[in-house]
Amino acid sequence: MKIKFKRVAIIGVGLIGGSFARNCRRYNLTEEIIGYGRSEENLREAKELGLIDSYHLDPVVEIERADFILLATPVNAIIFIAKQIIPFIKDETLLTDVGSIKLEIVKEIYPIIPDYIKFIGGHPIAGTENSGVKASFTELFCNAKCILTETPQTDKKALKTVKEVWEICGSEVIIMDPEHHDIIMAAVSHIPHIAAYSLVNALSVVAYQEKDIFSYAGGGFKDFSRIASSSPAMWKDICMLNKDNILQTLSVYIEQLEEMRRFIKEDNFTTLEREFFKAKDIRDSIKTNNKMPV
Amino acid sequence: MKIKFKRVAIIGVGLIGGSFARNCRRYNLTEEIIGYGRSEENLREAKELGLIDSYHLDPVVEIERADFILLATPVNAIIFIAKQIIPFIKDETLLTDVGSIKLEIVKEIYPIIPDYIKFIGGHPIAGTENSGVKASFTELFCNAKCILTETPQTDKKALKTVKEVWEICGSEVIIMDPEHHDIIMAAVSHIPHIAAYSLVNALSVVAYQEKDIFSYAGGGFKDFSRIASSSPAMWKDICMLNKDNILQTLSVYIEQLEEMRRFIKEDNFTTLEREFFKAKDIRDSIKTNNKMPV
Repeated sequence: MKIKFKRVAIIGVGLIGGSFARNCRRYNLTEEIIGYGRSEENLREAKELGLIDSYHLDPVVEIERADFILLATPVNAIIFIAKQIIPFIKDETLLTDVGSIKLEIVKEIYPIIPDYIKFIGGHPIAGTENSGVKASFTELFCNAKCILTETPQTDKKALKTVKEVWEICGSEVIIMDPEHHDIIMAAVSHIPHIAAYSLVNALSVVAYQEKDIFSYAGGGFKDFSRIASSSPAMWKDICMLNKDNILQTLSVYIEQLEEMRRFIKEDNFTTLEREFFKAKDIRDSIKTNNKMPV
Repeated sequence: MKIKFKRVAIIGVGLIGGSFARNCRRYNLTEEIIGYGRSEENLREAKELGLIDSYHLDPVVEIERADFILLATPVNAIIFIAKQIIPFIKDETLLTDVGSIKLEIVKEIYPIIPDYIKFIGGHPIAGTENSGVKASFTELFCNAKCILTETPQTDKKALKTVKEVWEICGSEVIIMDPEHHDIIMAAVSHIPHIAAYSLVNALSVVAYQEKDIFSYAGGGFKDFSRIASSSPAMWKDICMLNKDNILQTLSVYIEQLEEMRRFIKEDNFTTLEREFFKAKDIRDSIKTNNKMPV
């Protein structure tokens, strides 16, 4: 059965929301797209690009006209806006999001939605360093993983439909519970960001004495620290929303570093090399298995 | 005055040594190049590529015929091979190296060289993930920094010549004392590598419970962990040779991570965000100042 919505509402028409709109157009997923956002300039641009048909700054205006709503705002606004719009939704509607944390969102939204709103927590693992609708492009979700969450409250039919939508966008959809999602993301995304921010700050402590150390930074530091350019506000919110998993994995990371420090301090270089080999083997196997785009 | 050596000896004709040979050819820096190394296959390849005129597996053979010797082996072998060849060098000869640590090398070599050997510690900050002569290319040193070390034992004229050689190769040469070099490199290169190895191992601890977490790794983890594919043997040696600086900076890094952990634990997200901003500002200013290739 072909998927065709009457009206798609995209709340937050940025990199993700805008790219989703492009897929709606390309694959003819809907008759009409309404955009919502805080920046009128960005929305006007989205309209000029033909990605949305109309727009509103207030997320509750005309939201009852949509039968598919994508919450694509920054993660901290998702719960807030969901609570705002839910009372205005009248008919059978699919509501889904793209937030990079899931348990808090799912926990907050399920208890407050009426039966006729079918909510599916989602997280397309896609992005670039750029933001805004200008940065959007149709292929963003191609060959990317997209996690959808399933809980006892999840409507199976709605889950199937949202899964199909992301598959049409080119994503590989994986269904898991929100707890599992948040543990995985703490490890592969949240801790690397905290590690990068901390590294830059640690180096600035050393730089206090050795003025221009950053000018000697080669590829290692460059790669490692690129993600320290990410939005502090967003990452603060992620730390807030995935606090327990982040604390747990951060402690494992600190323990690993302390172990390396102990091996170096005690001249236990054989064990140190073994630890390096272990990491290299894992990293290389990820490349070889093509599990990750390199 | 144009620089022209009679015979350049390159000990270790890999990525760095091979690229240096290419520059000798392009800029006509010498009449003849002799290559040395442990792998005959690699040396044969270097000869077939026209980068060297002849080769030996034993570094002492014909070494007395060279008036410029580049030690371009892995860092742990530099002191060992220097000690091996020094007794065989007869006439006025320039001896320099490319090791990524400098104090240990300078400390070991200066006391044992006779007057007619002029030693200059060097470190071209250039490289790729590939190794061997096949990976070499002429432009490797272009726009890269090259640190040369100066100590009270350093011959000023020899320093000037080695500086000119690297400048001909396209590098920006900076002269500093070996202690300063090793502190800077601990911060911008050695700690990022230890951080990356530790991160991969920490994630493998989490992966023990959450089987396929690495398949969800996006750009953050990918960038951060790329350098964990580096040679464990080389990095073990670097940790051995730059132990004190690495221990000191590693402790600063662990302290920063502990601070971040405390802010998260105590729900002090305002301070956490400020720390993220600090790192972002530093990282962005590096990009803006073009201090670092991005």
